[in-house]
Amino acid sequence: MTTLNEYLDFAKTLAKQAGLMMLEARKSSSFERNYKSDHELVTSVDLAIDQYLCSELASRYPKHKIFSEESTPDLLVDKANSAPVWVLDPIDGTVNFAHGLPHVAVSIGLFFDGKRQLGVIEAPFLQQTYWAVAGQGAYCNGERLSVSQQDVLRNSVVATGFPYQKAALGSLIPKVTRILENCQDIRRNGSAALDLCAVAHGLMDAYFESVKPWDMAAGAIIAEEAGATVGHFSEIRAEWPEPLNGDCLLVSTPKLYEPLRLLLK
Amino acid sequence: MTTLNEYLDFAKTLAKQAGLMMLEARKSSSFERNYKSDHELVTSVDLAIDQYLCSELASRYPKHKIFSEESTPDLLVDKANSAPVWVLDPIDGTVNFAHGLPHVAVSIGLFFDGKRQLGVIEAPFLQQTYWAVAGQGAYCNGERLSVSQQDVLRNSVVATGFPYQKAALGSLIPKVTRILENCQDIRRNGSAALDLCAVAHGLMDAYFESVKPWDMAAGAIIAEEAGATVGHFSEIRAEWPEPLNGDCLLVSTPKLYEPLRLLLK
Repeated sequence: MTTLNEYLDFAKTLAKQAGLMMLEARKSSSFERNYKSDHELVTSVDLAIDQYLCSELASRYPKHKIFSEESTPDLLVDKANSAPVWVLDPIDGTVNFAHGLPHVAVSIGLFFDGKRQLGVIEAPFLQQTYWAVAGQGAYCNGERLSVSQQDVLRNSVVATGFPYQKAALGSLIPKVTRILENCQDIRRNGSAALDLCAVAHGLMDAYFESVKPWDMAAGAIIAEEAGATVGHFSEIRAEWPEPLNGDCLLVSTPKLYEPLRLLLK
Repeated sequence: MTTLNEYLDFAKTLAKQAGLMMLEARKSSSFERNYKSDHELVTSVDLAIDQYLCSELASRYPKHKIFSEESTPDLLVDKANSAPVWVLDPIDGTVNFAHGLPHVAVSIGLFFDGKRQLGVIEAPFLQQTYWAVAGQGAYCNGERLSVSQQDVLRNSVVATGFPYQKAALGSLIPKVTRILENCQDIRRNGSAALDLCAVAHGLMDAYFESVKPWDMAAGAIIAEEAGATVGHFSEIRAEWPEPLNGDCLLVSTPKLYEPLRLLLK
């Protein structure tokens, strides 16, 4: 417990500093935009924050592993691997960041002993710090979080995202259509990490999307510790351990989970 | 000019007070939720703000007309009608309001002599006041606004909304799909008024949706005065005068307008 809380404090310090780097870069408009394969945007700030996080973690915890979107996206994370693995997204919501929109976050998760251990998500433009530790609840700026009481599908607001890889749109559109037909509405903010926080916060009732481990490692434990059901609406194809596997991710209030899973299947 | 600026000052005062009513209601959770036909949500706060705006306007400008979502949605607004018409949405983003989400606004537009004359949009949870007067530019919290320089469809972020009336989804889904296939991404914040402000602010590059006059009367002039092209992606069927007609509304940076119109046609 003490060790976990020490990890949490360090992760919060790193996240806060990463947030300041985003604020500063936006203020001075001092960043470059580039596109990865499949037209995924990456800025020089993504890379600078990644470098900062990796170097701080490697220096403080030299035996830990680092699994990061920007520098080590192909790290093999083994279920049996006992070394703690830090799972990092230096900027979740890069398109928002480059456009001046507020839904932007740094996401830091920690995985070991086969489970998600903690998550910290800092959203500097919204002035929100979300965190959770396994078994200790989820918080935003110190306030304990719990999911909404929503149990009526027709009144529910469901967050989702759309893939950079346009080829994946074909199978997604019918699912989005069924959600629109059966729920109150969808929301698309452009940050998976903050969508998961919104479910934890009780502001949205559910979230579904197929995302990468760094997009959901922190957010999933935050949602779970706030009382959300975290699972998959379809068989997962990606190879990561289940707690870090964002394939067909579905996160919702407990009562909406099964009806949503059936809609999305 | 003087009269228009007097109207503007009054509209800003009303909008600020309406914003305070929203803040207060959310703080005390003191409101009722009901559903109109087609499952459109309305709260007691929508109605209280509507009553406040209508009574203040009627008392200050007894010869003006009021065209409001909540009390006079069927007012016939005639192009030739020379009396000024105030176009009101007491809460744009009611679902967000009821869920605790921040994208919520009061929207106040003014129409006479066949054109949009001014618009004020107050977003109390975002602490933003947007306004514009015909020929005088658009502003947010005093800062002059201009649309983004975006001219590449593939890099553009496009806001849209989904109808309460589920029957309208059928024709919308193929349009949303074409936008997703050809643009960077879509955003769905849940407030048409604030989507229009986001385009004016240069935070999003375009917005399309079929909406009612009260959803767009203020936002359209704010976007226009910030340099956006405001028009329709398809033939308009609704009977309101064109400047108040939100049917097939398309608002974008000038260079994106024609490519988007072709995609949405």
